[in-house]
Order: sequence, then C-alpha cells, then structure tokens
Amino acid sequence: MQALVLERQGELSLRDIDLPLEVGPSDVKIAIHTVGVCGSDVHYYTHGRIGPYVVRAPMVLGHEAAGTVVEVGAQVKGLKVGDRVCMEPGVPDLSSRASKLGIYNVDPSVTFWATPPIHGVLTPFAVHPAAFTYKLPDNVSFAEGAMVEPFAIGMQAAARARIVPGDVAAVIGSGPIGIMIALAALAGGCSRVLISDFSKEKLAIAGRYDGVTPVDLSQESFAAAVARETADWGADIVFEASGSPKAYSGIFDLVRPGGALVMVGLPVEPVTFDVPGAIAKEVRIETVFRYANIYDRALALIASGKVDLKPLITGTYAFKDSIKAFERAASAQPTDVKLQILMD
Amino acid sequence: MQALVLERQGELSLRDIDLPLEVGPSDVKIAIHTVGVCGSDVHYYTHGRIGPYVVRAPMVLGHEAAGTVVEVGAQVKGLKVGDRVCMEPGVPDLSSRASKLGIYNVDPSVTFWATPPIHGVLTPFAVHPAAFTYKLPDNVSFAEGAMVEPFAIGMQAAARARIVPGDVAAVIGSGPIGIMIALAALAGGCSRVLISDFSKEKLAIAGRYDGVTPVDLSQESFAAAVARETADWGADIVFEASGSPKAYSGIFDLVRPGGALVMVGLPVEPVTFDVPGAIAKEVRIETVFRYANIYDRALALIASGKVDLKPLITGTYAFKDSIKAFERAASAQPTDVKLQILMD
Amino acid sequence: MQALVLERQGELSLRDIDLPLEVGPSDVKIAIHTVGVCGSDVHYYTHGRIGPYVVRAPMVLGHEAAGTVVEVGAQVKGLKVGDRVCMEPGVPDLSSRASKLGIYNVDPSVTFWATPPIHGVLTPFAVHPAAFTYKLPDNVSFAEGAMVEPFAIGMQAAARARIVPGDVAAVIGSGPIGIMIALAALAGGCSRVLISDFSKEKLAIAGRYDGVTPVDLSQESFAAAVARETADWGADIVFEASGSPKAYSGIFDLVRPGGALVMVGLPVEPVTFDVPGAIAKEVRIETVFRYANIYDRALALIASGKVDLKPLITGTYAFKDSIKAFERAASAQPTDVKLQILMD
Amino acid sequence: MQALVLERQGELSLRDIDLPLEVGPSDVKIAIHTVGVCGSDVHYYTHGRIGPYVVRAPMVLGHEAAGTVVEVGAQVKGLKVGDRVCMEPGVPDLSSRASKLGIYNVDPSVTFWATPPIHGVLTPFAVHPAAFTYKLPDNVSFAEGAMVEPFAIGMQAAARARIVPGDVAAVIGSGPIGIMIALAALAGGCSRVLISDFSKEKLAIAGRYDGVTPVDLSQESFAAAVARETADWGADIVFEASGSPKAYSGIFDLVRPGGALVMVGLPVEPVTFDVPGAIAKEVRIETVFRYANIYDRALALIASGKVDLKPLITGTYAFKDSIKAFERAASAQPTDVKLQILMD
Repeated sequence: MQALVLERQGELSLRDIDLPLEVGPSDVKIAIHTVGVCGSDVHYYTHGRIGPYVVRAPMVLGHEAAGTVVEVGAQVKGLKVGDRVCMEPGVPDLSSRASKLGIYNVDPSVTFWATPPIHGVLTPFAVHPAAFTYKLPDNVSFAEGAMVEPFAIGMQAAARARIVPGDVAAVIGSGPIGIMIALAALAGGCSRVLISDFSKEKLAIAGRYDGVTPVDLSQESFAAAVARETADWGADIVFEASGSPKAYSGIFDLVRPGGALVMVGLPVEPVTFDVPGAIAKEVRIETVFRYANIYDRALALIASGKVDLKPLITGTYAFKDSIKAFERAASAQPTDVKLQILMD
Repeated sequence: MQALVLERQGELSLRDIDLPLEVGPSDVKIAIHTVGVCGSDVHYYTHGRIGPYVVRAPMVLGHEAAGTVVEVGAQVKGLKVGDRVCMEPGVPDLSSRASKLGIYNVDPSVTFWATPPIHGVLTPFAVHPAAFTYKLPDNVSFAEGAMVEPFAIGMQAAARARIVPGDVAAVIGSGPIGIMIALAALAGGCSRVLISDFSKEKLAIAGRYDGVTPVDLSQESFAAAVARETADWGADIVFEASGSPKAYSGIFDLVRPGGALVMVGLPVEPVTFDVPGAIAKEVRIETVFRYANIYDRALALIASGKVDLKPLITGTYAFKDSIKAFERAASAQPTDVKLQILMD
Repeated sequence: MQALVLERQGELSLRDIDLPLEVGPSDVKIAIHTVGVCGSDVHYYTHGRIGPYVVRAPMVLGHEAAGTVVEVGAQVKGLKVGDRVCMEPGVPDLSSRASKLGIYNVDPSVTFWATPPIHGVLTPFAVHPAAFTYKLPDNVSFAEGAMVEPFAIGMQAAARARIVPGDVAAVIGSGPIGIMIALAALAGGCSRVLISDFSKEKLAIAGRYDGVTPVDLSQESFAAAVARETADWGADIVFEASGSPKAYSGIFDLVRPGGALVMVGLPVEPVTFDVPGAIAKEVRIETVFRYANIYDRALALIASGKVDLKPLITGTYAFKDSIKAFERAASAQPTDVKLQILMD
Repeated sequence: MQALVLERQGELSLRDIDLPLEVGPSDVKIAIHTVGVCGSDVHYYTHGRIGPYVVRAPMVLGHEAAGTVVEVGAQVKGLKVGDRVCMEPGVPDLSSRASKLGIYNVDPSVTFWATPPIHGVLTPFAVHPAAFTYKLPDNVSFAEGAMVEPFAIGMQAAARARIVPGDVAAVIGSGPIGIMIALAALAGGCSRVLISDFSKEKLAIAGRYDGVTPVDLSQESFAAAVARETADWGADIVFEASGSPKAYSGIFDLVRPGGALVMVGLPVEPVTFDVPGAIAKEVRIETVFRYANIYDRALALIASGKVDLKPLITGTYAFKDSIKAFERAASAQPTDVKLQILMD
C-alpha cells in the first residue's frame, strides 16, 4: 500500500510500505479521504524528533484524518460500512488507571499516529478501534472532519479552562493552535477573545472571526491591551499558545485576581516562571495534553454552525503531491493555517 | 415623587409616594429610564403574594431597570454622573457569611426591589449601592440594560450548570425564563438547545434563534425528541424552567448518564420526584436562586453580540400607561415575552 | 463447585453449580476467602427482586469479596499469583462512552455480581478482570478487604459531595450505609458528622467513632439538632442514607445556604420533594450510584488507619453455615452492621 | 499604649505608640491575649522588607492573635463582650469585585496587619471588623486560637488542592508552613502525606503525627521516595512549601498523571519551570495567597480534635520579653516551629 513515508530527518518519499490491516473485533477499517498536515508532522520532517520522540525508522506521517468506514469488526456497534468518520489518533489502554479515571490522554501507554514508532495514516486505508472513530454529522464535510484533530486541542484547552459564561479570554500566539483555542473559547462560553502576535498576517486571519480582537505586539504590549479592554481587571483566562519562553515574562499581569492561565504551547527552551506573581493573584494554572472525550463535542459545535473551520483550510493537495504540501508547510508562510491532502 | 404603586392585590395606582432618596457614601442616585415588567411584578398584582412574600402595604413595583447616574456618594469609585447603568435589584449584607463566600444571593438578609416590603423602581429616581450598579457598554441600549435582570437568571442557570463546551441542553418550558436560559446556555458553551412547550407561539419565538430546536409537546414527548437528537444518549444538561410539577414525571429520561438537571422553575404544588431515577444515572442536580456575580458577564455577552435580547421586547409603554402594560402582562399573551415601561 | 444459590425468592441452597472459570488474557482467578452479606443479597432472598432486577433463575449470591490470586491471564500486569486482593463487583464495557468519561459505574452495559442474571461469588473461586481487582496492603486483612465494597459507597458519596476541609456533615440514617458515609466523610475532610436515626442501637454503633454525634429522632428533630450545633447556619453537606420518603420532609432545613444534599438511599415509594426549598438556598444535589475509581482510595484510607471498619463486622460464619448467616441478616437485628462468611 | 515596634530594619523596641482604638459600628475591640511570631514578622525585622512591602516608618509587629472581646459596635451581631476570639488579619473592601466573588484575599485593596504600612497587634488592644473576628469554641485555647492564622494557610492550600478522599500528598519542605499543610491535607481528606526536607530536626517534628512519612533528602530524592510509596504512579497532590527554586527541578516527577501541584512557598530568586513536564501529565497547578473563608473551618477541625497544633508551640514568652522571642525566632532553630507571646 502506498504511503507518505518519512524515511529519516529531511527525507520524504511516497512509496509502498507494509502496514497491518487486520480488523480486530472492536476495530473498523477506514478508507482515508482527507488528511491535514500538522506542525508536528512537519517538525519530524525538518528536525527528525520532537523532544523524547525520535524518528529511528521509516514512519508514515499524518494523524488528522477523515474517511469512510469500509469494514467493521464483529463486536462493533454504532458504526457501519459507509459511515463517514473522523478518527482520534491516540489509542490508550482502556483498562489502565488513567483511562478508568477518564483521562486516557495521559495514560503512559497511549500510542499515537505518526509519533515514533507508530505509523500515521497518509495512506489509503487504516484500521482503528471503533471507540475512537466518530461518525461525521451529515452537514460536516471530510475536510472539516480532518480539522477536528487540531480543533480538539483548542477544545481541550477550553474545557480545562472551566470557562464561566461571559469570561474574557486572552490568547498568546495567533498560530494555528492559538486560533483553534480562540474559536473554542468563544464557542465554549467566552464573551470575547483578545489574541496577540507579532505577525500581522496571522492576526488578520484570527481577526476575521466575530468576537476576536487582534493585538499587534509590534504596536503595544498585550498587558496594556488587556488592561485597557478589561478596565484594568485583567482577563479571566489567559491561554499560552505561542510556546515562546518570552511569553512568560509578565504573563500574570494579563490575568485577573483569581483568574486562570492555561498552558498549551510547548517551549523548547527553559522557562523562567514568576511564582510570586502567580501566587499574588492566586492564579489557577491548567495544562493541556492532547485531548480526551472531546471529539464528539467538537463535532457538535461544528455541526451546529457555532464554529466554522473552513476558512482555516488554506490549501489542498492531491495525495501524489503530498511532498509539495509538506514543503509548503515547512516554509511556514504566515498566511497559511492548515494544508490538507486528499487521498485518491 | 410619582410611582406605580401596588396598593393591594388587584389594585394598581400611579400616584405620588414618599421614597427615601438620600445618597450614602457608597451609593449612587439613578434617573430611571426603562423598567421591564416581570412575571413576579404581575403575580403580586394578581395574587398579592408569592409564597411567603405577602403584600401587606402599598409597594412600588418594578425591578428590571436601567437609567443614568445623576449623583454619586463620596466614596464611590468607578461610576460618575452621566454614566448609563443597570442595577442588580438584590442588596445583601456584604459582611454576612454567605456574602463573604461569594454567594450573596443566598444571604438570608438580602433585600430585593419589589419584594415585600421593599419598594421597586417604577418611579423617576432611585438610590442604590454603587457595588450593585453596572455601567452599560456604549453599544448596549437602556432597553437592553433593563433586560439584564431576567437574562441574569438564565446566566446563573448556565453558570451553575457548569457547561462543558459542546454540551447539548434541553430546556423544559419556552416562557421568558426558558428562552433566557436557552440563550445563556448557547452563549455559555452549549452546541445546541432543545426547548419544549405546549404553546406553538412560545416555541416560535425561541425557534427564531440559531441553535434552538423547538419541540412541540402536543406532537411528541420531550424524552422522545431528546433521544432522537442525541442518539439515545440523553442531554448533557436539562433545565427545568416551566415550574410545572408535571415536568418532573420522567424527567431523568432526558438526562444522559452522569448528566445534570438544573431546577429553575418554582412549582406551586408539591413535586413527586424520582429519586431512584436520578440515582441510576448519578445525575447532578443544581438549583438557581436569582444570581450573583452575573451582571458583568451578562453585559459582556450582550455587548459582544453573542446574545441578542432585543427581539424579546414585545411591547413598550410610557410611564403614564404603566397600568395598561400590567394589564396586558396579566393577560399572558403567548406572543409576548417582555413588556417595558419608559420613564419620562 | 459449591455455591450459595438463591433458587428463587425465599429459597437458598448450598449446592454444586456450574460456573465459568476460564481465565481470559486480562483476567485473574481468585480463591475467595471472605464474603460479606449485603442488604441487597438479603433483599433478593426475601423479596426476589430489587426494582427492575428480578431473580428469574437460580443465582449465586455475594459481591463483597476478598481472596487470593491463584492464576493470572497472559496480559495481566501488576498482579501475581499469591497476591491478596479484593474485587470491584461491577464490570463495565471499558470502551463505552461512559467508561471513556471515567464514569464507568453508569455505563448502561455494566454487569454486577449477584445482580440478576449475573452470578455472585459465594463460591470457592471466581474469575475477574485484573483491572477491577485490587491488591490489599499488607496491613489490611481479608475481613477488611471484604468491607471495601460497602465502604466504597460511603466513599463515593464523600467524593461526590466535594467536601471542603472542615465541612460539617449531617447523615440521615444510621444503618450500614449511613455509618459508611459518616466514616468516609470524616476521613474525607469533614470536621464532624451528625447522624440521625430512630434506633438507639444503631446510633450507639455510629457514636462510638470520634467525630460522630448521634441524634435520636425519638428525642428531637434532626433540623433542631443541626441548627443548634451549627449556630443556625445548617450543615454544609447532608447525606440522605435512610431511603425513607419521610426523610425528604423539611430536608432543606438541614442544609446551609449554598450547601449540598447527597442522595444515597433508594426510596421504594414516591418522594415528595420541596423544589422551592432547594432553590431558596440554591442547594446543590448530588446522587450516588455504586462507585467508580474508589477502591484504591478506600484501601489507602483503611491501610493508613484513618478508617477502622473492623468494629462493624458483627458476626462471622463458615461457608457451610451461609444460610444461617442470611437468616440472621434477614432478621435485621439493630445491633448488627455486617455479617461475613469465610470460605474454607 | 505599649507595643512591640519595628523602628526600622534590625531595630525593635517595646514602647508606647498612638494607635487608633475607635470602635466603628461594625467593629469589635479585643483585649489581645496571645500573639504568635510569624516568619514574615521576623523577616521584616531582619531584612526590612518582603518583596514590594518595605518598612518605611515604625510599625507594630504581630498578626497571629487571639484575645477577648471588650467592646462591640452598635451593629455587631454574633459577638458579645467576653467572647474569646481569634482574628483574620486581612481586611478587604467588602464591596470590591474580588470580595463579591468570594475571593476577598486577592482584593487589591486588602489591608493586612503588620504588612507595611499597617500596624500589627503586639499590643494590649486592637479594633477589628466583627466580620473577620471568630469566636473560639470552648475547647480551643487562646494559644490554639493564635495558631489559626498560620494553620489557615495550610487549610487554604488543602482547599485549593480540591482533595478527593484518600489522595496521597507530597509536601516539599518541613518548615512551619509545610507542617501546617501536611496537617490540613490529612484532616482534609488525604490518606497519607510524605514530607521532605534536609533537616532531620524538622522532619522529626512532622513525623510525630500519624499519617506523615518524613523523607530525608540527604538520604534519597523525594521523587524516588514518592515513586516507591505510590507504586510508580506519583502523588495525587504535591504541595511546594519550601520556597526554594531548586524544588522546581524535576517537580513533575512527583505528580501522578492528571495530578495537581499547589504552590505555596514564595521563592525569592527566579524559578526555572518545566512547562513540557507539566503538560505531559496535564498537571493542574494551584496557588495559595493567604486564605479566604477558612477561619471557621480551621476552628472546626481544631475543636473536633482532628488537628492538634499544640505540639507545634515550642516556646512562649511574656510580652515584656517580646524582643527575646524575636531574637530566638531570628536564630531559626530547626527544633522550633512556633513561638508565642503572652500579653499581660
């Protein structure tokens, strides 16, 4: 079966590869239709690793996927051949302590598509547990279905934030994840979102959405903007989505007394953290690792029309042009949010 | 000073009455601009009492009010003469145990406009603590400002529900409070709201909002509709807003395992409650008594455009025609949601 | 294999029965050591049913069990032959929507020992999923291990209550479950527990524990006692553990403004519920259905010495005398809390 | 009136000073009986400042106090002359946004005894709002009453941790605050507490309490001890009470997946924070700033006998020997936890 294979750092090839396609009793087999290109896919391509995860053998990329069920295991209920679906790429041990607690995303034994050494799904077919395969509502397209994965991170951030209706949010970083968080926070109960970046192009994309106020950091500090827009009270919730250690300097100036900081971005370099600043306002700090129990919620919000992810798809490539898609993604154009690949 | 006075059950008069207008150091004086007619005002008029609250002396009606600050006390910060404002009608003892806990709405010593023996504000001027007087954003009209009070009940229900983004809600009763809850639930993070009633007119009003699915109880049971729309899982949150004891029959059929019921409506007759039904699904049940710490959130959602209350104002009367407004309200026309009175 | 079999309502026999003992890859086989007699076991014996669960075929009783692992499945980690263990009697579908959420107790497909048509474990051997089998700490006896099941209900009640350290609790009903709740509430953060009953004997048992204040309902009302002991503020948390519809009369008089009611007891007759009374204090109401993610916590508290369940074991019978144990349990002596049966 | 005055950094005197003693309508006047010496009092003495708070004028020290009401304001309810009481030293603006939310501890306008420029209470009489004055239960001594303030910090930490009954806690730092946290965590629902320090003396004090396991950092790492004691799962809650930046190195190794870190200690130097480490386990992080709504809970736990603070009082001085008490406190003897001063 053909697949987009990361042979090693910097080398992609579209070639045949043997992948297991046996359908277990609780599994479904899916004909993949659309796969989004994620920053992590690109990072494995350009750097060969993400933190402790190192590409040591050829690996199929791709984990943001939607498709059609073509076979179902003997014990599967709730899904049938022909169902249009999207898939949650992480599969935990359902009998683990973390899974029993409902936080299967932090099960240490979870496997995740396109995270070494697990293959991804930039290939025509994949087998997946039915429990992590979600039917698309009729009015949700494959393209939107393949957007659920990145949106789920924004949703997990919004869920962990414990938004109280009407909260004002401040999002640091207007990249793909920052925008996903902004949309999830608005759909999830915030009255408005201020989002900051140095890139006018990225801010322009976020600013097209109702309820989002872009803040250009080359013009003013985020703290000044938040203070002005909240009558000096601060944001109820601050989401850190830039992954930049610099974002942590003065970060608690953004938060209201008793407010929350949600850390999503993964800084590569050490972060200097203002513990007394957090304590003085008794800030609650939450962290986000992927997502759990979010796909159905994300789909509900997309289907209801409260969240429109379509404008964020800024390019679509045929499977045979997958490498071009990755090269464009690797070039990190500020006007791009999400590139997608269509299987044949 | 002229005021709309409920002399006794069934007898309203627009007449002069002595009201205290001394401005204490933490108070503001407000020229009242708009006052909404609330179901409780009407109920005191028609029944002379609500539960333990009995009209024993002439009482000015009205507690849903917006106006303009005309005088500020010596210690007031954050408000100045000329500010357009709306007012939270309940005033607690801020040093009470409940207030210190942040739940000042359940402070036993709270006083509340137009709840005997406290006068309301259907009169040209009122004095109120600055701490419970909220500045209207520039794009929020007086008419909307006077809608904050009933909307705050919907918001309190949404806050107590602890909505997780994407939740599906079911609202029992499409009267004014049911509609307020539906709008608050949608703005507060729900993906969609099903709302039930026997009145086609009331359902039509709710159904005009995006995200609201009306369910006509003369056509099908709410349980059947919820099951169909949630793939037999149930609603994440059920709001009881009808106040009808009949609503409690089979109510837990509407709730998903581990979901929530939020009780807002006040039944007059005894309610038979299915304790084993609640337990079998381990349902969490919340209750809503007025609101606390909600006005600023409600205003933020109105100002952001996420909530549009203007279509719910179905009639506006001059102060001199106040009694006509009450008579119309007392006639309970199903096409009416909110009548308002404009002071001169 | 011998077992205590409920042939039909009112008829027990100790006889051979065929039970499946195949050990799957994720299972363990346990030599049963001690089994507690639960009120539900007795109720099936005396009434032949509990609500919708009807004994239609001979069924082995017993679900409060501890024993020793004698065989482990191929994929089992964390347990080995010779481990002393206790077992959670409910087994959900781990891939269900409820289980993924961490609330596997409300998975509609859960099976539960000695709940028709599932056999219990009053028999020498049982096979069980390793994920629901918990190693006993060295200082926890088999007798205590077999007490974990009923204590887990008290623990679930304490967990759902969301105790804030120092809360005052009021428990209605000093039967076995009421006492378990009282102990869990104290260990779980309450400063003190008031417990009410009409039975002096039952109150005496509860009153032997530090921190428990018995209230004899033949002497004074629980509301009067709670008011006196809380300076008229009310209990932070009220646990309903009697299952009596009468307990609901005036129940919200016991709760402080903004407090909680936790419903554990299962009333057989309809309950009249004071919805306005709950709303006036904005009471939060929680319900308890068995337990989830509780066994390890319960064992930790027993092992630490914070909870001593041994005084509650008021009689121990040999397996051959099982029927005598059930007859005594059915006689409902007020000085009895828990009878246990020792396998050979 | 005589008082212990910090004239400037390093200079204490016991001398007369004019202090306002006017009793407002909501105030009480208290004859001070016992005052504890707090680390912050000592720090102002030795360093003249704590962060932004600088001693610029002579200031009376002392904020951990108990005494007897000798006068009550006209509007005071619930307290009368002769009542034995302890006092919460921080007084917020009760009408502020933070206070209305119930988080009056983070009201920016709060004033706090012995925090410049506010005088403390090492003096025979003090006037205080009745709302922040708490009656001592009959079985709680003045000495214990004066321990409520430091214990309240431990209690706030336990409350913010949102302990689930049976949680295992790990406390970093066995100084006075670490010990207070350990006791509050145990009383508040934890099954056990591991506490770490380099000081054998400090560990010995903590280790005298049931449920506390001391870990000597000169013998093994805290991570190794926690892993061993939790079967490699990690602590449910880690409390950072040392204030040492070094404590943050590898801190998330101590926490279980989905667990919590509660930051209490105030590091003076910058802290390097492992954001990816927190995210990988989706750790929730809470912070503690003084306390709110805690005094009554702390008193309830002391009165019930669940918490015994008396062994922590390691020295008592007469008021005339106050300076000696401060000199001993400044010498930081590892066998000392709390020194108290008795007024005449």
